[in-house]
Amino acid sequence: MEELIKRILSFRDQRDWKQFHTPENLSKSIMIEAAELLENFQWDNNFDKEKVMEELADIMIYCVLMADSVNVDIIKIMEDKLRKNSEKYPIEKAKGNSRKYTEF
Amino acid sequence: MEELIKRILSFRDQRDWKQFHTPENLSKSIMIEAAELLENFQWDNNFDKEKVMEELADIMIYCVLMADSVNVDIIKIMEDKLRKNSEKYPIEKAKGNSRKYTEF
Amino acid sequence: MEELIKRILSFRDQRDWKQFHTPENLSKSIMIEAAELLENFQWDNNFDKEKVMEELADIMIYCVLMADSVNVDIIKIMEDKLRKNSEKYPIEKAKGNSRKYTEF
Amino acid sequence: MEELIKRILSFRDQRDWKQFHTPENLSKSIMIEAAELLENFQWDNNFDKEKVMEELADIMIYCVLMADSVNVDIIKIMEDKLRKNSEKYPIEKAKGNSRKYTEF
Repeated sequence: MEELIKRILSFRDQRDWKQFHTPENLSKSIMIEAAELLENFQWDNNFDKEKVMEELADIMIYCVLMADSVNVDIIKIMEDKLRKNSEKYPIEKAKGNSRKYTEF
Repeated sequence: MEELIKRILSFRDQRDWKQFHTPENLSKSIMIEAAELLENFQWDNNFDKEKVMEELADIMIYCVLMADSVNVDIIKIMEDKLRKNSEKYPIEKAKGNSRKYTEF
Repeated sequence: MEELIKRILSFRDQRDWKQFHTPENLSKSIMIEAAELLENFQWDNNFDKEKVMEELADIMIYCVLMADSVNVDIIKIMEDKLRKNSEKYPIEKAKGNSRKYTEF
Repeated sequence: MEELIKRILSFRDQRDWKQFHTPENLSKSIMIEAAELLENFQWDNNFDKEKVMEELADIMIYCVLMADSVNVDIIKIMEDKLRKNSEKYPIEKAKGNSRKYTEF
């Protein structure tokens, strides 16, 4: 992953795109790619795996760029959030139900 | 990253949530989290870094779950997409401009 | 507006599309169109008014279809919500600031 | 509808909110509300009609504000788009299928 992150940042820098990559613009970009992913499921579940893979990759790449733009370690924030989620969703309460923790 | 992916999948399985995690539902979930991220930039740029970190992590965690649900290697699809993007956005054409490759 | 709503529903029925127009699918569709609108503002504010008009219209048309699919009067729900918002955002507190009512 | 549009704009002006209502900010706001609507369908179809009505109304109210911010007549752009859609989706080709017109 670390190697890949370096390559993503280098891809950006070679094109001199950092100037466009404000946290706000990247947040919009993640949103736009997330909608393109959702488009594969708009009317039914017969999705094209190839397209899904590409859109999912686009979202992740923008997430890596976003993490860099706000200067956080993307692995670390995922670890932290997973720990928080474990507390918000204790196994005994969350098991087998999809309710939000505020509705337990 | 591999270690983290394992912990995310184990978090899901301990709660017996795989039954809810269809590709479609995860795609909606990514979208919903992406909007929560965007909410930090709705009216201005004075964002709360802590909140931004949490929402960004939520998106990434759902992306990891999505990759598992369609049975793809998340690192590999990012590498593949980065390669494609390098072809779609050759440095000499893309440098310093934010246009879509279809508008070169 | 009433005349227009009738024509939108008739457009749908002539194409036998009601079968696809579940509340869930329409909710995804609104989202997807909203992202296409946002794409006009992804990197800067030099938007193409023609495109913005079309995407905005698409969202509204899906909203009309959504209202029909859950069997509500779209004008009435807007009136009701405007009344609620007036209570949540009293003029003296809300004037000139963009904070959410939960943060007053 | 015209009466309602006036009340929406007056609601905004009494709070001196026009300064926040750039087309870009309203586009983000429509997106954020669209995601709140989608949240009602995140894991299943057992939605709360009351909440769906409120979120749908929020989207429509922001659309009215957006139309004002780019200075277009919201009824007229819907009529124009419906006409375009009728050409893109001729009844004989579109009847009973949910494919995009680009895939006919």
